[in-house]
Amino acid sequence: MRKTINQKEEKLFIPILLGTVRQNRQSEKVAKLLFKKISKHPEINTQLFDPRKMNLPMDDEGGYGGLKEKNADYRDAIIRADGLIVISPEYNHGYPGSLKRALDVLLKEYIHKTVGLVGVSAGGFGGVRAIEQLVQIVRELGLVVTFKDLQISKVQEVFNDEGNLKDDSVDKRIDDFLTELVWMSKVMKWGRKNLPSKYN
Amino acid sequence: MRKTINQKEEKLFIPILLGTVRQNRQSEKVAKLLFKKISKHPEINTQLFDPRKMNLPMDDEGGYGGLKEKNADYRDAIIRADGLIVISPEYNHGYPGSLKRALDVLLKEYIHKTVGLVGVSAGGFGGVRAIEQLVQIVRELGLVVTFKDLQISKVQEVFNDEGNLKDDSVDKRIDDFLTELVWMSKVMKWGRKNLPSKYN
Amino acid sequence: MRKTINQKEEKLFIPILLGTVRQNRQSEKVAKLLFKKISKHPEINTQLFDPRKMNLPMDDEGGYGGLKEKNADYRDAIIRADGLIVISPEYNHGYPGSLKRALDVLLKEYIHKTVGLVGVSAGGFGGVRAIEQLVQIVRELGLVVTFKDLQISKVQEVFNDEGNLKDDSVDKRIDDFLTELVWMSKVMKWGRKNLPSKYN
Amino acid sequence: MRKTINQKEEKLFIPILLGTVRQNRQSEKVAKLLFKKISKHPEINTQLFDPRKMNLPMDDEGGYGGLKEKNADYRDAIIRADGLIVISPEYNHGYPGSLKRALDVLLKEYIHKTVGLVGVSAGGFGGVRAIEQLVQIVRELGLVVTFKDLQISKVQEVFNDEGNLKDDSVDKRIDDFLTELVWMSKVMKWGRKNLPSKYN
Repeated sequence: MRKTINQKEEKLFIPILLGTVRQNRQSEKVAKLLFKKISKHPEINTQLFDPRKMNLPMDDEGGYGGLKEKNADYRDAIIRADGLIVISPEYNHGYPGSLKRALDVLLKEYIHKTVGLVGVSAGGFGGVRAIEQLVQIVRELGLVVTFKDLQISKVQEVFNDEGNLKDDSVDKRIDDFLTELVWMSKVMKWGRKNLPSKYN
Repeated sequence: MRKTINQKEEKLFIPILLGTVRQNRQSEKVAKLLFKKISKHPEINTQLFDPRKMNLPMDDEGGYGGLKEKNADYRDAIIRADGLIVISPEYNHGYPGSLKRALDVLLKEYIHKTVGLVGVSAGGFGGVRAIEQLVQIVRELGLVVTFKDLQISKVQEVFNDEGNLKDDSVDKRIDDFLTELVWMSKVMKWGRKNLPSKYN
Repeated sequence: MRKTINQKEEKLFIPILLGTVRQNRQSEKVAKLLFKKISKHPEINTQLFDPRKMNLPMDDEGGYGGLKEKNADYRDAIIRADGLIVISPEYNHGYPGSLKRALDVLLKEYIHKTVGLVGVSAGGFGGVRAIEQLVQIVRELGLVVTFKDLQISKVQEVFNDEGNLKDDSVDKRIDDFLTELVWMSKVMKWGRKNLPSKYN
Repeated sequence: MRKTINQKEEKLFIPILLGTVRQNRQSEKVAKLLFKKISKHPEINTQLFDPRKMNLPMDDEGGYGGLKEKNADYRDAIIRADGLIVISPEYNHGYPGSLKRALDVLLKEYIHKTVGLVGVSAGGFGGVRAIEQLVQIVRELGLVVTFKDLQISKVQEVFNDEGNLKDDSVDKRIDDFLTELVWMSKVMKWGRKNLPSKYN
């Protein structure tokens, strides 16, 4: 029994953060698909965070005025996480405001953990401009971003009515994205555990 | 009388958008100072928009699902505006989420109008990283950004208890910022009125 | 006769800057196509600048040490220009170094003139990440960037052996790009001529 | 003897890339200072690369047309490197073209190695806008950027005539920069050696 528990504990914990509260958000389909795929992944445990269900009232911002405590679930998940997957649509060449509000809630909790970025767009450019702005943000948060993003262009054409992929090529790209994310998460986990740093 | 009214109508209308809802936001002091200065400006009328008082519930984002109508004041102000001043603190090398949420409410209403960017920071870099990300956003919105920003570093040291500037050098920089903003706003106003375009 | 001359003088002058010196550069095809199309345009005169033929030795950079004088053709063209078209491939999510070297040669010569950005890529994202970085650069140079870019994805598939477009949809997008560039160039030209500014 | 050799081999190899060819470049002083400091560092070996001395003729760009072979020294150094220090002044809110040309020479050689960014400016903002653009570039190259940059503002005031620092506070910041760079370089080195990946 103990062996089973240990194996489970040794899985990487990589929560997913959905990046918008927009009505009829297409990126939710991407989040659900990734959640489903990762739930069966032999090396990752996950949990889905949705800014609609987080406590982000429009009278505060950042983690200094109490939002960190008001989002204890998210805080505790990031504290024990090995990595994070951020799913971001692109709004006017940048990231959604609700995604930034969620990310800004924490700071030192992110340091030396891995992040993988997923861009989603209705058009043909896969959300890459939002991703590029996010690369600058997550770096400042202390997260270590992988260099293999997952880009979902024309998201409205990618899923069937059951929320499954129409096209196997996306599946292959998800695998590549996760492979690199797992590699980097293991590397950073080793670092946090074995090399002294003032941050860990 | 009519002449007076006409003169007044010929003033540029340039609202100010405050860029955060954070508790104890220092950038509010900058917003109030600019509002006060511009109220006495011979060529500009203004109005202050505060995302705390806008209708930006955390169950929608962007202008497609009704937020445009829920923020009719802001929409109507931008429709009749010649320009916009955006005051942004820098959070984790980017813009605050609440600012992005406010900007994303509209789209075609911004086209061919001028915007001036004001960066605010507690540290020494004047919010320039938030400004650089905003340059990409406002460009996509169709706004024409001036190349003279106003950067307020170490904002907590700039104001006295009455909210006035301790240092005349900031005053001079505000004047330079407004001079270029007025110039560009007049140019774009002439363009919108006199040159046919599918956007105006 | 005089009337004809005057009409010609009233054309906008908008040079094209090719953005790479790479061997087998595909963006050269885009540059040549735009040059050919603009040569027949009723409202624009143009001239093609190629960084391979500019004087950009690898022992200096920027306009302070003599490069401005060594590139008098480019300097004089920008001085009399109403706008500029920059054609940039995307290398590693940014602009080519040779393009930046060419742009950095001048400074005040660019102020209050218009620029249109053309992104070129072998992949599917049209060079948009290079464009986004360039938006920040040209803004600082004092150029006013249009909000309608021209993006050429999979450039190796777009042209036939004669250098003509295989696909009419690109032609339509070029027209839209030029329409906005002409509009903005005329607006800024009016501003430079009619509204006093310390820069013009 | 063997022990000594082993110890030496176990040092991290982290070359320095100077980021401009400008006449009278101030960033050269920063490069020399870092080189001197690192030469005495117990855990790092280094080597200085200067784009003036690299083979970067203005008739090619990127690593596909022979530039990789023409810069075999740089290629071989990066192949055996554990990390890289990039020293970049800020030109018009971006990185110098010569720096981009040097970086673009290689690609897979950079993957899963660490990079630390040093910004240099004549003004007060420490080159942070160049750094932010470089964060996007180095990420695409496969380099893993630390989240602790070194920013040198008003570089012309920082050094005395002997090229030494006037101010101890810079020294302290260099130490912090190197501490994080060493930590991350060790972590990535462990990863490259111990965890299989298609890139290493």
